[in-house]
Amino acid sequence: MPVIPALIINSSMEQENKTKPICYKPIGIFYTAYTPETGAPRQGILKPEVKGEIEIYPEYRDALKSLDLFEYIILIYHLDRSVRWNSIERPPASNPDNSFGLFATRSPNRPNPVGIATIRLEKIENGILHVSGVDAYDGTPVLDLKPYLPGIDGIKSSKNELLEKELGIQFPAPYIRRD
Amino acid sequence: MPVIPALIINSSMEQENKTKPICYKPIGIFYTAYTPETGAPRQGILKPEVKGEIEIYPEYRDALKSLDLFEYIILIYHLDRSVRWNSIERPPASNPDNSFGLFATRSPNRPNPVGIATIRLEKIENGILHVSGVDAYDGTPVLDLKPYLPGIDGIKSSKNELLEKELGIQFPAPYIRRD
Repeated sequence: MPVIPALIINSSMEQENKTKPICYKPIGIFYTAYTPETGAPRQGILKPEVKGEIEIYPEYRDALKSLDLFEYIILIYHLDRSVRWNSIERPPASNPDNSFGLFATRSPNRPNPVGIATIRLEKIENGILHVSGVDAYDGTPVLDLKPYLPGIDGIKSSKNELLEKELGIQFPAPYIRRD
Repeated sequence: MPVIPALIINSSMEQENKTKPICYKPIGIFYTAYTPETGAPRQGILKPEVKGEIEIYPEYRDALKSLDLFEYIILIYHLDRSVRWNSIERPPASNPDNSFGLFATRSPNRPNPVGIATIRLEKIENGILHVSGVDAYDGTPVLDLKPYLPGIDGIKSSKNELLEKELGIQFPAPYIRRD
C-alpha cells in the first residue's frame, strides 16, 4: 500500500472538517409570549419586565444544580424561525444609509442561526427556569445554558458602546440594571 | 379518515421538535497555539496577549463588512475536543468542596458543546481575523461571529461577580482592559 504524504492527509481531513455537519439536540424549550405574528423586541433586555419559562428536559435537570445562585445566565438557543441570510444588512433602527456585514449585526438570519442572550433568572422550579428580559419566539429550542461571568463576558469597551448606537440599539437608563 | 384532535397533533409536533437534530456547518476555522497536549487557559481573557487567527471560508467573507469597527466580538464555536459530560462538576480552581451542576459551570464537556468567547479583534485581512485573548484548541470549527454589544451583553451584577470567584475564575487587574 503506498504511503500517503501527510500533506494530503491533512488537507483531506481539513476538507472533511469543513463540510461535516455539527449536530446538536435541544436540552429544552423556551416558552414566551412572542410569535412571528406578535413580533419580539430586538433584544430582550430592552424589555426586562417581559417574562418567559424555559423547560429543561428531565434528562438534563440534575445539571441545573446551583444555577439558581446566578442572577444572570447566558442562554444559547436555535433561532428556528430564522429565514435566508444576506451578506449585507441594514440594522432596523440605525441610520438608513448604514450597512453592515451580517456578522457585524445581531440579525437572526445567519448561516448558523445560533442566538445568545444574557437573561435574568428569577427562579428554578421542577426543571422550569423562570426568566425575564426575553426576546425569543415561543417554542424556541434551547441548546445550552451557562452562568454569566461579568469578568470574562462583560468587557468594557467605549468603542463598542459607540457602535451599538450606530446599530440602532438604544438603552434607556431604566432598562439597564446596574447594581 | 378520523379527525385527529389538536392535542395529539401538538404533542407529536413537540416530540418531533424535541428529538429532531439541529445541524450547523462551520463558517470557518480557528487557528491557535493550543492543543489538548499543551492545554489551554480556562478562559482566553485570562491570557489577553495570546493571539490566534480565524479563517472565514470564502463564501462567508462578504458578511464580514464593518466587523473590524468593533474592538471586541463574540465568537461562537464548536468544542470539538469535548468529551462525555457529567451532571455535576467541580470547577478546577474552586474550593474542592464546591460542586456545581454542569450548566452552572463553563466546562467544555456539555450536552451541546457550544463555546462562546468575547475576544479582541485586532484586524481582518483577506478573510482572516487576527484576534487575541483566545482559549480554543487549534482547528476548532467556528459557527458564528457577532459584535459584542456592552449594553446588552455586558450586564453588571455584583451577585454574579461574587460567584465567578467561587467558580475559581480570578481576574488579576492587568488582564482586564477597562477603557
